[in-house]
Amino acid sequence: MADARDNPHHSLAIEASLQGEAYGFVRERLRLPMGLEASFGWLRHPPTLMVVPRWADGRLLLLRRYRPGVGLRLLEFPAGTLDEGEDPLTTMERELQEETGYAASRWDALGAMLPCPGYSDEVIHLFLARDLRPLPNPPAGDADEDLEVLLMEPAALDAAIASGDEALDGKSITAWYRARQLLNL
Amino acid sequence: MADARDNPHHSLAIEASLQGEAYGFVRERLRLPMGLEASFGWLRHPPTLMVVPRWADGRLLLLRRYRPGVGLRLLEFPAGTLDEGEDPLTTMERELQEETGYAASRWDALGAMLPCPGYSDEVIHLFLARDLRPLPNPPAGDADEDLEVLLMEPAALDAAIASGDEALDGKSITAWYRARQLLNL
Repeated sequence: MADARDNPHHSLAIEASLQGEAYGFVRERLRLPMGLEASFGWLRHPPTLMVVPRWADGRLLLLRRYRPGVGLRLLEFPAGTLDEGEDPLTTMERELQEETGYAASRWDALGAMLPCPGYSDEVIHLFLARDLRPLPNPPAGDADEDLEVLLMEPAALDAAIASGDEALDGKSITAWYRARQLLNL
Repeated sequence: MADARDNPHHSLAIEASLQGEAYGFVRERLRLPMGLEASFGWLRHPPTLMVVPRWADGRLLLLRRYRPGVGLRLLEFPAGTLDEGEDPLTTMERELQEETGYAASRWDALGAMLPCPGYSDEVIHLFLARDLRPLPNPPAGDADEDLEVLLMEPAALDAAIASGDEALDGKSITAWYRARQLLNL
């Protein structure tokens, strides 16, 4: 991604800001590469992680998770937030275990993606995890998270993506696209 | 999507808000389906649109667009915002012409997607447009938009997605996945 940063904008002033949880919203005055000045409002978000966990028989581990911002239950791959100074792979291995009760011994990086570059600076690091095994003593999980762990055939996930029913999450579909490319599916 | 709204949360209070351009950021107190109360900060965004425009020979029309929020030029499909009372297809037809100078006579809906359901309520309506033709008098375009129109082979787009170089935009990759499903590619 570094090569594409060849034409940076210049921040002139932060006009206003409001903090959410891990992220905040900022209204900022910028000078753009074309020389114009403009105000932009966007979300400042720490980097995050998402993993496509794949069972030896090809089935995928997904979460059905309630998202209050949209009032919907969605099919998503396990994800986490990267704290400052943490290593993406180490953090993703821990989050996979905490969220699902499974560990994986074979990991591949699937590159970065941007979920909504028009108004958020969030970068998501994607991974593929293979050779899954259930943990002997799975962690209890967060009490405030309404989520269900599923094992799905790839064809069932593709049908859900095509139907647009519960498989609406752009980062999960992007992660799955990159995983299919690496797996030559 | 309506069927999945079976377990709504209850908004208790708006604690703070900040307006961006077409969108705003709100901190809200909610009662969740599991009975807990919590504060959430999220972006309230109007619905948007994105189209995969496909030439008769299979090449795809993409934009290389500067995104100041991330300081990068990205490969994205043409997109637009839906104003209240507007029809998604009519708006997308107009936005395609304005952004690219091309019109299309064959349109298919590719369903909805959510770019970042954890912190934004934006819904993107996806389309496939075929039978492209250049407009005899293409519109001048927005003076403040730094963008370039490209025709790409599907294999070149897939290589860009795999490389993670400029094809980082989750909504564009999701739109292309749904288009491939409809086209049986």
